[in-house]
Amino acid sequence: MAKDKKKKPVRPKALPPKGFRDYFGAEVAERNAMLAEIAEVYHRYGFDALESSAVETVEALGSFLPDVERPNAGVFAWQDEDDAWMALRYDLTAPLARVFAQHRNDLPTPYRRYAMGPVWRNEKPGPGRYRQFYQCDADTVGAASVAADAEICAMLCDTLEAVGIERGDYIVRVNNRKVLDGVLETIGLTEDDVSTREAVLRTIDKFDKVGREGVLQLLTEGRTDSSGARIDGVGLSMAQAENVYYFLNSTGDNNTETLGLLSQLIGSSAKGQAGLNELEDISELLNAQGYNENQIRIDSSVVRGLGYYTGPVYEAELTFEILDAKGRKRQFGSVAGGGRYDDLVKRFTGQEVPATGVSIGVDRLLAALREKGRISSQSKGPVVVTVMDRDRMGDYQEMVAELRNAGIRAEVYLGNPKNFGNQLKYADKRESPVAVIEGGDEKAKGVVQIKDLALGARLSAEIETTEEWKAQPAQIEIKRSDLVEEVRKMIARAEGLG
Amino acid sequence: MAKDKKKKPVRPKALPPKGFRDYFGAEVAERNAMLAEIAEVYHRYGFDALESSAVETVEALGSFLPDVERPNAGVFAWQDEDDAWMALRYDLTAPLARVFAQHRNDLPTPYRRYAMGPVWRNEKPGPGRYRQFYQCDADTVGAASVAADAEICAMLCDTLEAVGIERGDYIVRVNNRKVLDGVLETIGLTEDDVSTREAVLRTIDKFDKVGREGVLQLLTEGRTDSSGARIDGVGLSMAQAENVYYFLNSTGDNNTETLGLLSQLIGSSAKGQAGLNELEDISELLNAQGYNENQIRIDSSVVRGLGYYTGPVYEAELTFEILDAKGRKRQFGSVAGGGRYDDLVKRFTGQEVPATGVSIGVDRLLAALREKGRISSQSKGPVVVTVMDRDRMGDYQEMVAELRNAGIRAEVYLGNPKNFGNQLKYADKRESPVAVIEGGDEKAKGVVQIKDLALGARLSAEIETTEEWKAQPAQIEIKRSDLVEEVRKMIARAEGLG
Repeated sequence: MAKDKKKKPVRPKALPPKGFRDYFGAEVAERNAMLAEIAEVYHRYGFDALESSAVETVEALGSFLPDVERPNAGVFAWQDEDDAWMALRYDLTAPLARVFAQHRNDLPTPYRRYAMGPVWRNEKPGPGRYRQFYQCDADTVGAASVAADAEICAMLCDTLEAVGIERGDYIVRVNNRKVLDGVLETIGLTEDDVSTREAVLRTIDKFDKVGREGVLQLLTEGRTDSSGARIDGVGLSMAQAENVYYFLNSTGDNNTETLGLLSQLIGSSAKGQAGLNELEDISELLNAQGYNENQIRIDSSVVRGLGYYTGPVYEAELTFEILDAKGRKRQFGSVAGGGRYDDLVKRFTGQEVPATGVSIGVDRLLAALREKGRISSQSKGPVVVTVMDRDRMGDYQEMVAELRNAGIRAEVYLGNPKNFGNQLKYADKRESPVAVIEGGDEKAKGVVQIKDLALGARLSAEIETTEEWKAQPAQIEIKRSDLVEEVRKMIARAEGLG
Repeated sequence: MAKDKKKKPVRPKALPPKGFRDYFGAEVAERNAMLAEIAEVYHRYGFDALESSAVETVEALGSFLPDVERPNAGVFAWQDEDDAWMALRYDLTAPLARVFAQHRNDLPTPYRRYAMGPVWRNEKPGPGRYRQFYQCDADTVGAASVAADAEICAMLCDTLEAVGIERGDYIVRVNNRKVLDGVLETIGLTEDDVSTREAVLRTIDKFDKVGREGVLQLLTEGRTDSSGARIDGVGLSMAQAENVYYFLNSTGDNNTETLGLLSQLIGSSAKGQAGLNELEDISELLNAQGYNENQIRIDSSVVRGLGYYTGPVYEAELTFEILDAKGRKRQFGSVAGGGRYDDLVKRFTGQEVPATGVSIGVDRLLAALREKGRISSQSKGPVVVTVMDRDRMGDYQEMVAELRNAGIRAEVYLGNPKNFGNQLKYADKRESPVAVIEGGDEKAKGVVQIKDLALGARLSAEIETTEEWKAQPAQIEIKRSDLVEEVRKMIARAEGLG
């Protein structure tokens, strides 16, 4: 199969690796602005920033990557010159466990920390599914009290409101793994039935997608999906499966009602009762802080697939409707989730350290804000000072310096100035609000031309008669000494029209 | 050599890989604040943000890592499941070249972009030398005019002043590789003498460290350093070496004088003359924008070691004195550098694309700001609401919510509240300004105690008599309803004292 091609110098492909992408201009600025707003809330709650290294030893990361069975599958890993394995972090929780174990004598306990940054997954990329993406986490390590869980739910509400999601457009749903454990105990699945219990978890996490019948089939004998593929069932009896299904559907009109419904399902399970008590405490603590049940609500359908949660789990959902790719209305859905986990630090120290935390889906939350029109994609392009006379670059630099010193975003055209049309095309690509023009005649008269580019574009599209052109000129002549003032006015007018 | 150890469960080490580190709290916040200030200046100059992926194909990165001879040595690289090699970026310039080549039809030309983020080097770590660190770059791609270089020098001044380096405490030095090329031409080294020319570059980049005799020795026959190690020389004649040395020392009292001195060294070299003209243009353009020679100055000693520069090179130095590790005064030194390079994009497209850019050493600039006292390490710890009565967590949560809603950083103690001393120790570790205390008696009376922790610490250290204690009490009783107001007052007082 050897190929006989003539060798010629091979140029590298100008592409990132498969599944990676770049972010440009406003995308970067908007994300940074949102992360700064989130950090402000986290900081106010007493959380401290942590930026751990992007690279960890493979042994420190462990095999905790959710839903992957091979150790270290799903991560980007390589060997050091000393043969030690290193890998890119796949989330921000595993590094937190390592950091806390390493610095536990110097850090306050409880340790509240937040972290924001990229994580990497060595997974098959797909549409909208990248191998590098942002996470934004807040965790409290070393606090056994559910006050820590309640605090994170409260902080989640404040965070969503701070970035621009209005009250009424989100709901934080809270459940407790212990209650589910109680239900499973009651139907005869003990803590030793690890694999069956995990299979139940994975199955009910898919609840939304397959409906009542689907869930019952998957919990019992299995089912054949629409493509004809057979999916094995968990092997519960129908009576057992129905109890699990009831659990998922025990959300009443208010927390009191929900707690009542759940209490019927857990029978005499002490663990289940402990879980209910915790939910009640969380509900009361949030009440005391002024959060109502339209903001944070106990909801038995929240399961969260990850095996490592041990107590309260929570999820923030945006409830306003958007149109999906097929033009159907649907709720925007989940933008954050988390819960209590106790075993991550133990791997390092042998001591169990209680912890709870949340992760915000940065890209989904950004998409939601764009959807709500909270992020304006309005032109923030620079004023472009054009170059009419290559030898007078100093004059143009002087103008641009004046504008910048007045806080106005501005640049001189730095390409080849020969073709003036290219300069205006450039200004257009830059989404420039105003172009400044000073030819030799203007210079001699002490004036400059300034052109409202947005208005110019509209005028040439809309206006028919010369009279109208004159009445609303897109280009005006001003005194050179009034440059800053007049440009500022023109930008303000453009923004008013925008 | 087999060892016979009893097997016991091996716990992973709680350490990052060698040469990596974590950043905590204020370190992260201070860096982010500085980067935001820099981004604001860059944006005002018309530069757009770009965040490229941290991972690139090895072929896209190429072998451009400075001062490394093996291709891809010095980078962290691994193979994909498709056997394709990927690597972590080692700087922000190579990814820019890839991005520009990839998106050149959609991006404006010239393309001004800035980028901030970590880069990774697979090099031997040392004290203060990490394998992951931040870079902060601004580049203009597609502008052949030295107005682009001048603009970056001007922006560098504005940036340094924006983050808090005062005028007079920095100098941006500018030189031109073409002038050096002219000098080398004049002493008989043509463009074909690539390896000798590169050796000259590397050698004179070390100028600062070895002094006049050292440079002359290294340029000619080599030298034996203080440890007795022999370093080979470049092999120039003494006459040639002296010309190079004169070049490095041709900085006069002002730009006109410097240009005059340099013009004597380049003889009839057209390239050298072109370089001089460019320096003159840069000087004039900066003048027009109001920058003086105490801010930006032509300096023939600026060489910059990297082989890929083709025109103007520049470097920002902080000129104030600090004490080094041995207590000796020295200037703070370089915090940013860059220059013009033309070949990076060509690798991908075959077309030469002129580009110029600067990279700011984020960590060094942060260190400089700390040195100047521009970053206050003043306590920004949260108010800690202590827990006197575990059953009244709701009351404490209510207080903390009130404080937070008033914009005051605050937290409830979430550890085990049994030992009150531990709660105050915790508040101390958190550098908390104020602790709030409400026991059953206070609750009944509708009051709370608030304690000025900084003052408390000072009082217990300084004050001897009970009268003084009473005159300046660190702990006061206030009405519960005045909580926010009184805490705010106490924090203001603490900051006034701090």
